[in-house]
Amino acid sequence: MWPIKLPSQPDLSDPSPKTIAIVGKYFAVGISESLTEIIGFLQSRGHHVVLEAETAQNVSMAGIAAMTPAQIGEQADAAIIVGGDGTMLGIARQLAPYDVPLIGINQGRLGFITDISLERMLPVLADMLDGMVESERRSLLQGVVMREDQQIFSALAFNDVVVSRGAASGMVELMVEVDGRFMYNQRSDGLIVATPTGSTAYALSAGGPLLHPSLGGMVLVPIAPHALSNRPIVIPDSSEIVIEIVNGRDISVNFDMQSLASLQHGDRILVRRSEHTITFLHPAGWSYYDTLRQKLHWNEYPSAEGKLK
Amino acid sequence: MWPIKLPSQPDLSDPSPKTIAIVGKYFAVGISESLTEIIGFLQSRGHHVVLEAETAQNVSMAGIAAMTPAQIGEQADAAIIVGGDGTMLGIARQLAPYDVPLIGINQGRLGFITDISLERMLPVLADMLDGMVESERRSLLQGVVMREDQQIFSALAFNDVVVSRGAASGMVELMVEVDGRFMYNQRSDGLIVATPTGSTAYALSAGGPLLHPSLGGMVLVPIAPHALSNRPIVIPDSSEIVIEIVNGRDISVNFDMQSLASLQHGDRILVRRSEHTITFLHPAGWSYYDTLRQKLHWNEYPSAEGKLK
Amino acid sequence: MWPIKLPSQPDLSDPSPKTIAIVGKYFAVGISESLTEIIGFLQSRGHHVVLEAETAQNVSMAGIAAMTPAQIGEQADAAIIVGGDGTMLGIARQLAPYDVPLIGINQGRLGFITDISLERMLPVLADMLDGMVESERRSLLQGVVMREDQQIFSALAFNDVVVSRGAASGMVELMVEVDGRFMYNQRSDGLIVATPTGSTAYALSAGGPLLHPSLGGMVLVPIAPHALSNRPIVIPDSSEIVIEIVNGRDISVNFDMQSLASLQHGDRILVRRSEHTITFLHPAGWSYYDTLRQKLHWNEYPSAEGKLK
Amino acid sequence: MWPIKLPSQPDLSDPSPKTIAIVGKYFAVGISESLTEIIGFLQSRGHHVVLEAETAQNVSMAGIAAMTPAQIGEQADAAIIVGGDGTMLGIARQLAPYDVPLIGINQGRLGFITDISLERMLPVLADMLDGMVESERRSLLQGVVMREDQQIFSALAFNDVVVSRGAASGMVELMVEVDGRFMYNQRSDGLIVATPTGSTAYALSAGGPLLHPSLGGMVLVPIAPHALSNRPIVIPDSSEIVIEIVNGRDISVNFDMQSLASLQHGDRILVRRSEHTITFLHPAGWSYYDTLRQKLHWNEYPSAEGKLK
Repeated sequence: MWPIKLPSQPDLSDPSPKTIAIVGKYFAVGISESLTEIIGFLQSRGHHVVLEAETAQNVSMAGIAAMTPAQIGEQADAAIIVGGDGTMLGIARQLAPYDVPLIGINQGRLGFITDISLERMLPVLADMLDGMVESERRSLLQGVVMREDQQIFSALAFNDVVVSRGAASGMVELMVEVDGRFMYNQRSDGLIVATPTGSTAYALSAGGPLLHPSLGGMVLVPIAPHALSNRPIVIPDSSEIVIEIVNGRDISVNFDMQSLASLQHGDRILVRRSEHTITFLHPAGWSYYDTLRQKLHWNEYPSAEGKLK
Repeated sequence: MWPIKLPSQPDLSDPSPKTIAIVGKYFAVGISESLTEIIGFLQSRGHHVVLEAETAQNVSMAGIAAMTPAQIGEQADAAIIVGGDGTMLGIARQLAPYDVPLIGINQGRLGFITDISLERMLPVLADMLDGMVESERRSLLQGVVMREDQQIFSALAFNDVVVSRGAASGMVELMVEVDGRFMYNQRSDGLIVATPTGSTAYALSAGGPLLHPSLGGMVLVPIAPHALSNRPIVIPDSSEIVIEIVNGRDISVNFDMQSLASLQHGDRILVRRSEHTITFLHPAGWSYYDTLRQKLHWNEYPSAEGKLK
Repeated sequence: MWPIKLPSQPDLSDPSPKTIAIVGKYFAVGISESLTEIIGFLQSRGHHVVLEAETAQNVSMAGIAAMTPAQIGEQADAAIIVGGDGTMLGIARQLAPYDVPLIGINQGRLGFITDISLERMLPVLADMLDGMVESERRSLLQGVVMREDQQIFSALAFNDVVVSRGAASGMVELMVEVDGRFMYNQRSDGLIVATPTGSTAYALSAGGPLLHPSLGGMVLVPIAPHALSNRPIVIPDSSEIVIEIVNGRDISVNFDMQSLASLQHGDRILVRRSEHTITFLHPAGWSYYDTLRQKLHWNEYPSAEGKLK
Repeated sequence: MWPIKLPSQPDLSDPSPKTIAIVGKYFAVGISESLTEIIGFLQSRGHHVVLEAETAQNVSMAGIAAMTPAQIGEQADAAIIVGGDGTMLGIARQLAPYDVPLIGINQGRLGFITDISLERMLPVLADMLDGMVESERRSLLQGVVMREDQQIFSALAFNDVVVSRGAASGMVELMVEVDGRFMYNQRSDGLIVATPTGSTAYALSAGGPLLHPSLGGMVLVPIAPHALSNRPIVIPDSSEIVIEIVNGRDISVNFDMQSLASLQHGDRILVRRSEHTITFLHPAGWSYYDTLRQKLHWNEYPSAEGKLK
């Protein structure tokens, strides 16, 4: 296994001006106003503000420098993302090789990882920039696809790596090995390998458990498995997984949203934890369980009157 | 709803010779020997034996007339299928418009609907032809696909009608109506509408319940639904279901194994019980629960020692 | 199987005054005001109004006759229940032998079967009494407990019959027969037999499917079964179920909320559909799917942004 | 969090004679013969063999010293358990404070943690004592029950800590906190906190995921939760869990098989990883996935013919 880089905790309360990058959801209604407001606020506090390049093209804001994700990675001290969880995941993958902590502001209803509302963003950002901040680190998956001895694809995934069947093509059969040990041949619609971050996404729909982000694990969730005992299994994130295509047609593999289609029998997908991690910054007092409780409606019950007596 | 044809119970103990059709699994190893043995046995009892046309091509048996499925439907008093559940489902769909009862002999390990073993087939058939028989009737689904006002596809399904996403194409959004009532907009990998027969197939893998074959119902089973409360729902088989494609790409619909790909937004799949039914004949004493217990290993437990005390 | 009584559809638009019984949730805050309002409204329309006896004791309303449930069953043309699903289920069991249709008004948030809100009750009742009404019939279960040859308990259940283990007593082993056929020996925390009405209650929590109320079926849902393939199974409601206690301690059986504790090995619980049914009246345009969608939050998703693309 | 003791890997290939303790399942048929055989084999190899005290009473074997579990813990270099997983769990809890590695021989069909068959035990033991051995360490849970400020119960659990309702007593409501953070108020039949070892036991029946033994995690699995989104959640095993009884009757808590009944509202169960661990020894080449595959019948499918095409 590769070593994990442990970035030092960003000291946002440092009095010297800092470079903060802004990333906005593309083509989102009202995004310009929100970004303008944030930029003004940050400049008034003496920060150096830059715009992510595609965001800059979209919102055209005079006098603000544009930077590519790589430049942001090298030069920014933090990045503020305005959009939804999808926007956050997209830029996080690009910034993964750098140690830039991310702050997520949600335009709509709050997400799992974009947990600051547009309405309260300025006072919350003020507090966070004053150091009232909680930091947590999320793992990513790194995957490669091997065809015979050739690596034909490689990508990072923040949520999950998914091998799945085509729409009109019946079941797949996959051979799974973990750390060089044969696990099983699985017949199903496919297999999800999810990080803790991905455990609240597709893996949850397919019947997987929730994984706390600080758990050093990842979960294999079969999709509609033929054998009823093929239950989700959580393994240490130090494990190396090999998924071999044994049977089936029109099979593809997805790394978050990046896809490789037309896999062939014998193709092997190798998945392990990336050497990179992503740091999220949250307002002080943030709790993962609060997010789960709110997003999953844990306190709503089907019947107004329970069986409680 | 259309009326259901109720065929009279076949009187297999009738002393007059009967026409019995034989259907064999294509390209199955050793199938010729099995069919020859059955044919000899039936002829020795005075029955008129015919071979299904494709089976005849495959096994080339001299002196035995070949018939198309339609001819079998019109002329045969019963059909004996040698193969697996898939072979049985295939011919059953073709014979659905006719009232020909089916007997299933399984080449490998017993199936859900092919419940006579190759080893014991002759004495079992002898008993059954002497009238020691249990008859049960299975429903089918009839589906059509409408694009605007045009019917672009139509098929019968014995197991299920499945609307599902493409391999690399994210979620689908489907709008479901039952009996003219809006049920929900569902985001998922797809939706299965299954008969009781199909409830032990794909629907089971996707988390659906078992339905007893004599239940007048069908089940809607969402595949990896985004909303955790989108649970399987069993509705009367007098219901008419409309599934409209709202969103998603590369969506297809499968009627058992027959597929229509590249559905478009606005396409509507109409599903209801077929006016036809299929009659299966089983050895006297047959019980559906015996089949379930055996096929699902209901009496095997993960741990040798349970928590029982 | 016993014959099912089919009550004629109540003709609520009949101009002659009718006797309408009122049942209120015991000790509910503000219940007197609601009942007074309904009574005044019904009297002003020329209906004869009576109060269920325990409700009468609770709210003490001058000049309104009190009736036992049996008297209501014999004399009332309809009953209006103000409370929640639990109140409705309680009185419904008592009125089951009579053909009194029930109307449910919910004090809190709407229930599965009490679907008229307190705020809108008067105009809705006016429309319903003018004949703008949908009627549906719900089945009940009848159960008896046999110890050797003695019947030691008997009860009706609207939701479910539940056999379950004691708190500190490990697993139970139950032998289940349906229609005289052995189904399985099941090791679990217990077994739920639920009606369609009960399918949205405890059975749902234990992993059961939803059953449409007009489905002629009931569902067996194992609670935490030892064998992973012991899935819920839906059987025709013409079936007769026998559950025998094979092993375990401190086992009890619950019929809705009525319990018999300390079951012994060899005790047998017999469950079948009751000969009685309950008729619910709903406002015209009512749809079961609307209720499900609202109660189960079918249109809420864990993530604001789905995988839809 | 308390520090975890890391015992040094036992060097079983050390040529000096060693003390090996033998534990047998109580009252098991044929156990004397098996123990005699093992003892003779070990003595012939020069090992010093002792019998666990209760085992000694049961099998009465002349000339073999008997030791209490505490004495075994202090003096033995390894213990061989003959029985099933339950026997293994029972002695493992008692030996937890000591660093005695355990070897499990199963009398019946193989267990999850007793993975050597009676038939092959001598050659397998010979190889293991020659050093061909795999060692793995399992975590335990330590729980205490607090009533107001008093600790009223304390126990270790190898599989799980389970809070659950009484048989005839409706739902419980539990308030769960993790690491001082409020998780949720849960209405259900109860809550399981399971170790990786316990993830294949009761937690699996209740819908939990499998956890690899080397994962540093534990899983909270609600039993028949009222809220459909109350899914199993895996948290780091450095977490401290508090479960408070909010509502319900006849509630008990079980630590593996040790029970405390009649919990009161306000009682708090504190669960965290024990400072102790258990070391299991397996034959060289042992793989946890092999055990799962065999025990869970991962390669058996409901239908003989899948949808594979």
